[in-house]
Amino acid sequence: MSDGWRHGDRLHDECGVVGIFDHAEAANIAYLGLHALQHRGQESAGIVAHDGAGLRVHRGVGLVADVFGERELSLLPGRHAIGHVRYSTAGGTGLANAQPIMVRYGGGQVAVAHNGNLTNADTLRARLEANGSIFTTQSDTEVIVHLIARSLAGGFEARLVDALRQIQGAWSLTVLTEDRLIGARDPHGVRPLVLGKLGTSYVFASETAALHLIGAEYVREVEPGELIVVDGNGLRVSRPFAQARRRACVFEHVYFARPDSRIFGESVYGVRKALGAWLARESGVEADVVIPVPDSGVTAAIGYAEASGVPFGMGLVRSHYVGRTFIEPAQSIRHFGVKLKLAPVPEVIRGQRLIVIDDSLVRGTTSSKIIALLRAAGAKEVHLRIAAPPITHPCYYGIDTPERTQLIAASHSVPQMAEALGCDSLAFLSREGLLEAAGGESKGFCDACFTGNYPLPLTDLKAR
Amino acid sequence: MSDGWRHGDRLHDECGVVGIFDHAEAANIAYLGLHALQHRGQESAGIVAHDGAGLRVHRGVGLVADVFGERELSLLPGRHAIGHVRYSTAGGTGLANAQPIMVRYGGGQVAVAHNGNLTNADTLRARLEANGSIFTTQSDTEVIVHLIARSLAGGFEARLVDALRQIQGAWSLTVLTEDRLIGARDPHGVRPLVLGKLGTSYVFASETAALHLIGAEYVREVEPGELIVVDGNGLRVSRPFAQARRRACVFEHVYFARPDSRIFGESVYGVRKALGAWLARESGVEADVVIPVPDSGVTAAIGYAEASGVPFGMGLVRSHYVGRTFIEPAQSIRHFGVKLKLAPVPEVIRGQRLIVIDDSLVRGTTSSKIIALLRAAGAKEVHLRIAAPPITHPCYYGIDTPERTQLIAASHSVPQMAEALGCDSLAFLSREGLLEAAGGESKGFCDACFTGNYPLPLTDLKAR
Amino acid sequence: MSDGWRHGDRLHDECGVVGIFDHAEAANIAYLGLHALQHRGQESAGIVAHDGAGLRVHRGVGLVADVFGERELSLLPGRHAIGHVRYSTAGGTGLANAQPIMVRYGGGQVAVAHNGNLTNADTLRARLEANGSIFTTQSDTEVIVHLIARSLAGGFEARLVDALRQIQGAWSLTVLTEDRLIGARDPHGVRPLVLGKLGTSYVFASETAALHLIGAEYVREVEPGELIVVDGNGLRVSRPFAQARRRACVFEHVYFARPDSRIFGESVYGVRKALGAWLARESGVEADVVIPVPDSGVTAAIGYAEASGVPFGMGLVRSHYVGRTFIEPAQSIRHFGVKLKLAPVPEVIRGQRLIVIDDSLVRGTTSSKIIALLRAAGAKEVHLRIAAPPITHPCYYGIDTPERTQLIAASHSVPQMAEALGCDSLAFLSREGLLEAAGGESKGFCDACFTGNYPLPLTDLKAR
Amino acid sequence: MSDGWRHGDRLHDECGVVGIFDHAEAANIAYLGLHALQHRGQESAGIVAHDGAGLRVHRGVGLVADVFGERELSLLPGRHAIGHVRYSTAGGTGLANAQPIMVRYGGGQVAVAHNGNLTNADTLRARLEANGSIFTTQSDTEVIVHLIARSLAGGFEARLVDALRQIQGAWSLTVLTEDRLIGARDPHGVRPLVLGKLGTSYVFASETAALHLIGAEYVREVEPGELIVVDGNGLRVSRPFAQARRRACVFEHVYFARPDSRIFGESVYGVRKALGAWLARESGVEADVVIPVPDSGVTAAIGYAEASGVPFGMGLVRSHYVGRTFIEPAQSIRHFGVKLKLAPVPEVIRGQRLIVIDDSLVRGTTSSKIIALLRAAGAKEVHLRIAAPPITHPCYYGIDTPERTQLIAASHSVPQMAEALGCDSLAFLSREGLLEAAGGESKGFCDACFTGNYPLPLTDLKAR
Repeated sequence: MSDGWRHGDRLHDECGVVGIFDHAEAANIAYLGLHALQHRGQESAGIVAHDGAGLRVHRGVGLVADVFGERELSLLPGRHAIGHVRYSTAGGTGLANAQPIMVRYGGGQVAVAHNGNLTNADTLRARLEANGSIFTTQSDTEVIVHLIARSLAGGFEARLVDALRQIQGAWSLTVLTEDRLIGARDPHGVRPLVLGKLGTSYVFASETAALHLIGAEYVREVEPGELIVVDGNGLRVSRPFAQARRRACVFEHVYFARPDSRIFGESVYGVRKALGAWLARESGVEADVVIPVPDSGVTAAIGYAEASGVPFGMGLVRSHYVGRTFIEPAQSIRHFGVKLKLAPVPEVIRGQRLIVIDDSLVRGTTSSKIIALLRAAGAKEVHLRIAAPPITHPCYYGIDTPERTQLIAASHSVPQMAEALGCDSLAFLSREGLLEAAGGESKGFCDACFTGNYPLPLTDLKAR
Repeated sequence: MSDGWRHGDRLHDECGVVGIFDHAEAANIAYLGLHALQHRGQESAGIVAHDGAGLRVHRGVGLVADVFGERELSLLPGRHAIGHVRYSTAGGTGLANAQPIMVRYGGGQVAVAHNGNLTNADTLRARLEANGSIFTTQSDTEVIVHLIARSLAGGFEARLVDALRQIQGAWSLTVLTEDRLIGARDPHGVRPLVLGKLGTSYVFASETAALHLIGAEYVREVEPGELIVVDGNGLRVSRPFAQARRRACVFEHVYFARPDSRIFGESVYGVRKALGAWLARESGVEADVVIPVPDSGVTAAIGYAEASGVPFGMGLVRSHYVGRTFIEPAQSIRHFGVKLKLAPVPEVIRGQRLIVIDDSLVRGTTSSKIIALLRAAGAKEVHLRIAAPPITHPCYYGIDTPERTQLIAASHSVPQMAEALGCDSLAFLSREGLLEAAGGESKGFCDACFTGNYPLPLTDLKAR
Repeated sequence: MSDGWRHGDRLHDECGVVGIFDHAEAANIAYLGLHALQHRGQESAGIVAHDGAGLRVHRGVGLVADVFGERELSLLPGRHAIGHVRYSTAGGTGLANAQPIMVRYGGGQVAVAHNGNLTNADTLRARLEANGSIFTTQSDTEVIVHLIARSLAGGFEARLVDALRQIQGAWSLTVLTEDRLIGARDPHGVRPLVLGKLGTSYVFASETAALHLIGAEYVREVEPGELIVVDGNGLRVSRPFAQARRRACVFEHVYFARPDSRIFGESVYGVRKALGAWLARESGVEADVVIPVPDSGVTAAIGYAEASGVPFGMGLVRSHYVGRTFIEPAQSIRHFGVKLKLAPVPEVIRGQRLIVIDDSLVRGTTSSKIIALLRAAGAKEVHLRIAAPPITHPCYYGIDTPERTQLIAASHSVPQMAEALGCDSLAFLSREGLLEAAGGESKGFCDACFTGNYPLPLTDLKAR
Repeated sequence: MSDGWRHGDRLHDECGVVGIFDHAEAANIAYLGLHALQHRGQESAGIVAHDGAGLRVHRGVGLVADVFGERELSLLPGRHAIGHVRYSTAGGTGLANAQPIMVRYGGGQVAVAHNGNLTNADTLRARLEANGSIFTTQSDTEVIVHLIARSLAGGFEARLVDALRQIQGAWSLTVLTEDRLIGARDPHGVRPLVLGKLGTSYVFASETAALHLIGAEYVREVEPGELIVVDGNGLRVSRPFAQARRRACVFEHVYFARPDSRIFGESVYGVRKALGAWLARESGVEADVVIPVPDSGVTAAIGYAEASGVPFGMGLVRSHYVGRTFIEPAQSIRHFGVKLKLAPVPEVIRGQRLIVIDDSLVRGTTSSKIIALLRAAGAKEVHLRIAAPPITHPCYYGIDTPERTQLIAASHSVPQMAEALGCDSLAFLSREGLLEAAGGESKGFCDACFTGNYPLPLTDLKAR
C-alpha cells in the first residue's frame, strides 16, 4: 500500500528476470517463472504485460505468491510479458524501487527488468540530471530508460544499443516494448541469462529452473554481449558491443543460483558437489560425520562426504515456518536466533567429531552461533570447512555483500577466524579448487569477492 | 500493495492540498489537514516530509485514516511537509498517480501537490517526450516537475516560475524543496487556496476547514497569480505571472467545498443558503414540506424553507455505513441502490406535497430513483428544485463531470427532464441567482459547466 | 481472526435481530436486514442459515459489510436464516460473544439471536453450572440455549417456552431450528420486534427500517408476550406467558431507533419532532437560531424550531470519515477530539444567540466540549436544550448506559449542570412531555433511566 | 475473522500441545513451543494463559507466527499457559474448532489442549446431549470438558480423572485451571508427551524439539497412564487409570515427529536412519544413486545409502516458497502440481539408475507424479523404496489418513502398485524391520495402519 522511500545511498540489488513473447497466457507464465526465481529476490515482484493496446504493470512488495493472485493476473492480459523479483539491502524502499520499470517516452512505451549492478550509474545520473532529467527511484534501471529516451539514434533497437553502450557493470536485461521482447547480457556476462522455447514462444530467464517449471525447453545461454530481439518475425541475434573477456560471477555457483539450474554452461549441483570434493581433498580431517549447514551447504557436503569417505548426516534441521518477524522472549534464550531456523539433531551430534560444511563465510556471526549450538548439543569436535575461499572484498556487480569492514576474512587470518568462531579447525577451499570445480579458469570468471581483482571498471566508486 | 496502471486517457482529478513549514509535528499536521479535506478526494492520499537530510514520501490508496497510521507517520519525521488527497475517474490507477510527486533533478529534490487540471498538459508532455523526458504517471503534475527540471533559469524559484508560466489551466499548488515551502495559485484563481498560521508556522490548505481542525488562524486567501515562498527568513510574496481576470470555480460553492469553509472570501454555508433562498423566490410552489437530498442539499433546503415559509423536514435519512462494495441479492429489490444510501421517512412523506432540494443535476439517474422512492413512500406531489442552473458542459479545470452526452441537461429541456425524472414540477436556479448568491458577478467566476463559456484556453482539447 | 475473551463482568449489549423463513436468498436478505439495523450494533455481526442438511453459521468482528462478502454469503445457502448485530461495552470480547449462538443439543440444532438484557442470567447460570453445564461465552443468550437443552418438556416449542418462562428481563428473539423460525418478545415488550412479509416469506426484524430496505411489507408488531412460529404450515401465534404491563423502552424513541422506523406503533421521526416541540413549549428562550447536535439531535431541533419560530440552522457539520483509530498530534489541539467529528459553521454561529438541541445528556463530557467549541467559534449565547429528561439511573434492560456515578444528572442539579457545561442556560424536557410525545403514558413505557422506577425485577443485581 | 462451521462428520485431527507453569513469560514460552511443533498442525493455533485473575484465550486460524504477534501475546499476561496447534481434514472449520477449549463450569474455569482422537466421543456426546448438554464445536475435546463439568466427584483432579476414565482412544493432554497445570497421557500412550524443566518451571510438550527451542531441559516422557499435576507445591505424579499395554504410534517415528525430537524414548532421526538401513538390507537393488523425496524421506535415504553403499544424492529440490493458493495456467503444464514443490536436478538424474526413498505410501498419486517427473528428467531406472510397510487401514487415533478406499495398498498388490506408479521396481519395509528399527516389538507399538490390528476399542465406529 505504500511506496515510501528516500533518496540516499546506492542500492545493492539481487534480482531475477523473465520474459516471454507471443503466448496466450504471457503474464501467468511470467508469474510462474518468477516463482522459480524467488530465491533471487524476495522483497518485491512485478510483471509488465502487453495487452494489444499498450503496456500494463503490476508491482508489489512481498513474495511472488503474495503480490500476484488471480485478480492481479487477470488485470494483465496480453501475449507478451516481462517480470522481475528483487531483493535489496536498503530497508523500506519497497515498492518505489520495484521493477520492471515502465515509462512512456518519445518513442512510445518501454519496460525494463534488470539483474545486476551498474558501476557508473551515479556518474550517468548526475549528467542526466544536469540536462533536465528527473528521477523517481534509486534504481540503476531508471538510468537505462533515461538513456533510451535521450538517445538521438533512430529506432528503438538503435536507441537501446546507444544506451547500453554507455553503461558499465553487470546487466542481464529483459525489455518489452509495444511490439518486441529483447533479452540482453553485458559483454562480460557477469549475471546469467538463458533462452528457452515454450511451444512456439520464446522465453528468457535468469536460470534454467524457471524454464523447467513452465515446461519450456532450454535452448542456450544468452551469450555475453548478445542482444536478442524477439518480434513478429521471430528471433534476431546481434552483438553490438565491444568484445570483452567473459567474467561470469563464480558466486552464482557457490551460493546464489538454484542447484537444479544450469548456468554458464554447467550444472550448479555438479559444481557444488565438486566444490565439496575439492575441499575434502585439500583439507581432509579425521571425523565421524559430515554435516551441512542447510540448505545451501547440502550439495557441497554430499560431495565432501563422498570424496572423504566420512559418513554424511543431517545434523541440523532447518525450520521452514520462520516468518519475517518473530517475537523473542524478554528472557533471552541461548542461541535463540539461530535455533529458530536450525535445530541440532542430538543423535547425529552427541559425542561425535563433526565436519561442518558451509557454502561461504561472510561476517562469521551465524557460523559462530551454529558452532556454539553444536557444542551445546554435545559435539566432541567441530571442524568447519567452507566450500569457497575467504570473502575479502565486497561485490559491486549485483551480489549483496557487506562493506569490507564487516567481512571477517578481510581482517582475520584463518587461525584468527577459527578462534573467533570457536571451532576446532577451519579451512577454506583454495581459489584454484574453486575455479576447477566451476569448470576451469579458462571459462572466465569474476572472483573479485575472493581476490579483490575487479575486472569491470568501478567508475562511481572512484569518483566518490 | 499495487501500483498497476496504464498509459491512456487523461485523468480528471479532484484534489485537496496542504503544506506546513517549520512545525515540530509537520507530518501529523499535514495528516490532520488532509483529513479535513477528505471530501475533496477519497481515492488516495500522500505526504512528503523533510527530515533534515532530505525528503521522504508515503503515499497509499484509500482514505487518509487508512493510508496513514502511527507507523507511517513515524517514518515521516521533520519540520516541513506537504500533503495531497485525490479522487480520479479512471479505475484502478490508484497508487501510480497518487501525489505528492517527489523527484530528484539537477537542483536537488522537489515535491509537488497539485489541485486542478491543466489544459495544455498533453501538448507539453509531447514536447518533453520529444526532448528525451520519460513519464511514469498520467498525472499533469509530472509535467510540472519536468518543466522545473528542464528550466535553464537560475535558482529554484526562477525555475518554478519558468515552469508555471508554461502551463495553462487550473492549479493550486503546494511545493516542498529541501529548504522552502511554496504555495501558488493560477492567475485566474480557479481552485481555492488559503494561507493560515499555526503558532509561528505558516500553513497552506485548499479550504479553511483544514485550518480549523488543526487550530490554525486564517490569514487570507492566496490571491490568484500569487506565489508565496516560506523559508527560514519568513514569508515572501510575488506575482510573477501576467495578470488575468479572476475566474473562481462557482461549483466549489454549489457542491464541492465543505459548508464550514470560507472560500473565495465567502462562507460556503452562507452561499448555499442564499442559493436556496434565491431558488425559493424564483421558483416557489405550494407544498407541505421542503426536504433536502442529504447531505449536499441540506443547506440550500434550509434557505429555501426559510425564504418560502414552507416547513423544513428530513424526509430522507442517509446511511453512513455504506462501504465500497455491497452484495446485491439476485432477486432485485425495487430502488435497491438508492435505498442503501437514502431511506425515506414515511412520517414526513406520506400524503404530502414535497419540495425536494438537490444541489445540482448531472446525469439525473439518482434523482429519478429518489423521486420513485418518494412516490412509493406515499408522496402526493414531488417538486424537484435544483439549487444551481442546468449543467450543460463538462469541466476541464478539475471537477469530475461526465462527457456532454451523459449530462441530461445538455440534451433535454426542463419539461423533458421533468418528465424523464418523473416529478410533478422541476425548476433550476437561474445563472443570475447563482452568481448573486455567490457574492455577485463582479467577483469573477468560472461558470463554464452551466454556460459553456470556458474562460481558460483548452489547448489539448483543440489539438485532438 | 481472534476470539480472545475472558470471563468477567456482565456485558451490556445493544443489538439488532432479523429472521426470514422460506426465501430463495435467505442469507442475503438477512444480511441486508442487518445492514439496515447497523446503528443498533457495530461491533460484530452474524448469520445462521439452514441449508437443507443443517445449520451453518458465520460470525465476525466489524460492520456487516466487513464481516460478510460474496464468499461468506455463498457459504450460507438455504431458505431460512436469522441474523444479529451487536455492540458491547466490554473491550476486546469481540468474536467469542458474537451472535447468533448456534449449538447442538439433545433435540438437534438450534440458533438464537437475542436483543435485550436478562436480569437473572447470573442466577440461572450459577444454577446451570452447579448442574454440570459449561459456558463458553459471557452472553445471556447462552443461558437461554442451556435452558432449552435442559428442559424436560416434549417438543421444541414446549422446551423453548419452558426456557423463556425462567428468564427475566428484556428479550426480543429470533430462533432458528432445522424446520422452523420463531420470533418472540418478552411479556413487557421492552425491546421492539416487528413482523413483515416479503412475497410469501415471513420476516422478523427489530425495526421497520429493515423491512423497507429489503422491500418487505410491514404486517404488525410482535406483541409483548407473543411467540410466533413460522414453519412449513405457515404462521402460528401463541401467548404462553403470564400477562404483564407493557413497558416499551422510551429511550428507543429518544435516541436508539432510526428516525425512519416505526416502533411501538409510532413513527420515531414523529415522536422526536414532538419531543422538540414540547421542549420549545416548556423551555422557550429568546435566540437567533436553533442548531442540532448532529445526527441524533436533528429531528428534535426541527420540531423545536417549528414550534418556537426561531430559525433552524446546521451550525455543526458532522464528519463521516472518522474511523476507529486516529492519530492525535503530540501538541494537543484545542477541542481536538470533538472537532474531528463536529465542525462549527462560523456563518451560523458567529455573534449569534444559539439554542443547541441534543437528544439526551449522559456524562456531559461531549456537550461541554461542544459548548466550548461553539463559544470559540464566536457564539454570543449558548442555550442547551435536551429533548429528554435528565438520565439519573443506568439501564439494565439492554441500553448501554454508564454506572450512576458517571451520570452527570445523578449528582448535579440543573443549575449545577449548566455551570459545569458552561452554557448560558440549560433545560430538559419534562417526563410528562416525553411520554406525551411518545404517544401518551397509557401506552405503557419503561422510563427507568429517567426515574429509577425499574418495572422488571433486578434479580442478579439484588443478589450481589 | 470468521468462525463458520457446521455440525457434521467427525474430525480427524493432528495436533501438538504445550504447557508451562510459573514462568514470567508463560505465553511467550508457549508460543515458541508451538512454533517448534508447527509441523504437527498448521491450520490453527491457540494459547490460554492465566493472568492472576482468571484465564484468557487467544485462538486463530493460520500458522503460529500469523496468529500471534506482539499485541496478541501482550493480551495474555500471567505465569501459566497451555497451547495447541491443529490440523484438520474438514474444510472451513477453522476457528470454531481451534483449541485450547476454555470454559467456565461449576468448579470455575478450565482450559484443555488435546492431541489424539477419541474413539467413543460420539457415544459420549449422545449421552451428554440426552442429559441436557449443549455442544458448540465438533471437537472431541468438548466432550472431555463436559464430563469434567458433569462429574460428581469432589475437587478438580477427581473430576478430571472421572472424566478421563470414561473416554477411550488416544489422548495426550495439557490442562490449565486457575491454580494448576496438568499433563496426562492415555494408558496406552499412543501419542507422545514429554516433561521438561526451564529453570524452576515445569514444561510439557508433544516433542522434545519444543524443549530444545525454549532452552528447557528434557526430564522424561510422561508415561502412559500418568497424570502429572504441577501447582504451587511442585509436581505430583499419579496413575489413576487401569493399566494397559503400551501402544505408541509407530507412525510418529515413520513420518509425523521431527527428526531432531526424541519420542517414546528413541531418537526419531536414529529410527528413521535405521528404517532406511533395514530397507536396504531387505530390498537392495543395483543402482547409481539413492535420492530422497524431501523433506520427509531424507533421513531414511541417508540410512539406505550408508547401508547399501550406493551414493546419496539430492535429486529433488524442494521449494519452500509454495503458499496455500497458487494460480495454475489454463494451459496445463506437465506435472505442474508436483513441479511447484519438487524440482528434479538433472545432474543427479539424467541417465542414472535411481533408488527413490519415501517415508510412506498413502494414495500413491504424488509418488506417481514424482516418478513421471524423474523419467522426464532422464532417469534410466526408477526403483521406489518405501521406508515403512504398506498402509492398508485408516488411523482412528489421531493421524489424518484417508478412508480405506483411497489407500492404494488396501486394494493393490505390490506388483500392481509398481505398475500403477510406473516404477521399475517397488519394495516396502517389512513390519519386522519397522518394529526393529523403532526399538523392538517389545516396546509396544500401535501399527494398525499397517496391519488393521486396532489395539484400542472403536466404540463409535461399531455403533454406526
